[in-house]
Amino acid sequence: MPTLMSTNILFSTIETELKTLDKNLKTMVTAQHPVLYAAAEHLFNAGGKRIRPAIILLMAKATSNTILDTHKRLAEITEIIHTASLVHDDVLDDCSTRRGLKTVHSTFNTKIAVLAGDFLFAQSSWYLANLGNLHVVKTISKVIIDFAEGEVQQGSNYFNYNMYIQNYMEKSFYKTASLIAASCKSAYLLNVDDIHYSNHAYNYGKYLGLAFQMIDDILDIIGSEALLGKPTGLDLKNGNLTAPILFAIVEEPYLVTLIEREFSQVGDFELALHLIKRSSGIQQAKDMAFEYIQSALTCLRKLGVSDAILSLKQLTHYIFTRLN
Amino acid sequence: MPTLMSTNILFSTIETELKTLDKNLKTMVTAQHPVLYAAAEHLFNAGGKRIRPAIILLMAKATSNTILDTHKRLAEITEIIHTASLVHDDVLDDCSTRRGLKTVHSTFNTKIAVLAGDFLFAQSSWYLANLGNLHVVKTISKVIIDFAEGEVQQGSNYFNYNMYIQNYMEKSFYKTASLIAASCKSAYLLNVDDIHYSNHAYNYGKYLGLAFQMIDDILDIIGSEALLGKPTGLDLKNGNLTAPILFAIVEEPYLVTLIEREFSQVGDFELALHLIKRSSGIQQAKDMAFEYIQSALTCLRKLGVSDAILSLKQLTHYIFTRLN
Repeated sequence: MPTLMSTNILFSTIETELKTLDKNLKTMVTAQHPVLYAAAEHLFNAGGKRIRPAIILLMAKATSNTILDTHKRLAEITEIIHTASLVHDDVLDDCSTRRGLKTVHSTFNTKIAVLAGDFLFAQSSWYLANLGNLHVVKTISKVIIDFAEGEVQQGSNYFNYNMYIQNYMEKSFYKTASLIAASCKSAYLLNVDDIHYSNHAYNYGKYLGLAFQMIDDILDIIGSEALLGKPTGLDLKNGNLTAPILFAIVEEPYLVTLIEREFSQVGDFELALHLIKRSSGIQQAKDMAFEYIQSALTCLRKLGVSDAILSLKQLTHYIFTRLN
Repeated sequence: MPTLMSTNILFSTIETELKTLDKNLKTMVTAQHPVLYAAAEHLFNAGGKRIRPAIILLMAKATSNTILDTHKRLAEITEIIHTASLVHDDVLDDCSTRRGLKTVHSTFNTKIAVLAGDFLFAQSSWYLANLGNLHVVKTISKVIIDFAEGEVQQGSNYFNYNMYIQNYMEKSFYKTASLIAASCKSAYLLNVDDIHYSNHAYNYGKYLGLAFQMIDDILDIIGSEALLGKPTGLDLKNGNLTAPILFAIVEEPYLVTLIEREFSQVGDFELALHLIKRSSGIQQAKDMAFEYIQSALTCLRKLGVSDAILSLKQLTHYIFTRLN
């Protein structure tokens, strides 16, 4: 993963807004309840690279070179929804570390994690309603349904080596791309309620989100624990069969045996990782991610020419460079 | 608890709407995912007495003698939110039976329960946004925040014998009354957007909800397992100190010792139940519930005179008779 410097340069035009966002997120997730606050602070401090809010703020600038207060709030809401989904996702995945830090449900317990997730989802719904734009409320509400749908699909396909790549893409849309797509669209809806532009913005977010997820899934296989902040191959170990794994199965049928017995014998997991790496699965997944990046760029061109669009273009390229 | 007959008579004017609601709830919680469907069906079939939707439908009739399609949808949304909160509440309370049936997280597992709850909350947000009334969206969104707040307050006060009755009422408002209040108000907002009437409707729902919760908490102590569909004194055992218990502590200080050691010695729990029953705690709680019922009736009178208001009046009385 590139150093923070790369995103710092990319986000230079929205640096002030991103700093305010960090501050607001901590204030918004009220400090009244020590444990919940600890849970939330822990997550918000872990930070990620604020790629989602950055995309929204840049998209907001693209609409008319002005970032409205509602845009800033939308960026905050999106980050809260994303964090809420991570908290519940970790309970569902039995994941004990994320971004190199222990997850809420392993640091505290499952109850606190359920509660913290509910609390964050509730906060986001409330702030969303108070944006005062029914079209945006509908667009973002759909995302929460999509999350749940994505979790269900993932949950019912663990260790399912018969899964199609289309199922994987659908799940990636629900769990990752839907939020980015809906928030890009909403950035337009909050300013220029133009169906033409807002649909291009939606599609940009969708393709970018799909590429983003695919790249994350490739990194899960090829990245080191130090780089990922979590053990290598965690998806594989959990039976969450991502694109590179599904592509690899076709070339390396012994993977089916290993997956079928859920890596229960000594060395199974390491052998599976080795088989995936020697197959063309990683490359096929990279090619697919590259195609999505190209589709995202095509949508971006339809949104006109401006400094903000240029930054979004660079951001889109940057996401692909995470693989290097 | 009175037989179903009593509510059948009370709800005779809205019988058709309640039947449609039952049917719709099952369809709305999509049948695409066998496990989630099973989880949801299980809950919706357990049924309760549909008191919440009945209140909304009657309140809708009270607004202008017409139940709009949006009112019906509001009643469904309220029941979905209520069910979602029960599913997560059961995870948080480690409750293994509800209404005489095993809870989702004990029948399936915690993950399915988290997922089913998220799915139901998501569905409700989506249907809510599609009601197309921003004022209603804001009013109901607040309820979801209140739920989370109520859970946090409950979670941080287990076995806290120093808790004030005011803390208990606040928690009851967040966990029970807020939803009834907000949906009564929304029934008005959907038809006659009159701040005067909608506030009376809100206060009616608030007082009714507080009485309802207080009565439930009294029944937890004095009801039999057969009557409750769950073991007697479950709140007490879990350290969830409700009004009758808090009142009893003042007269029976040995309760503090029992609560402090979390009923860890043989006979502690039975002794605590006995001490509460011999104190005036139950009667004090009944008196308080009666006062809330009276306050609810006062609010109801401000909403005018109609058949629907008469039914709501009877329903309000009926809720108190559950104690007999």
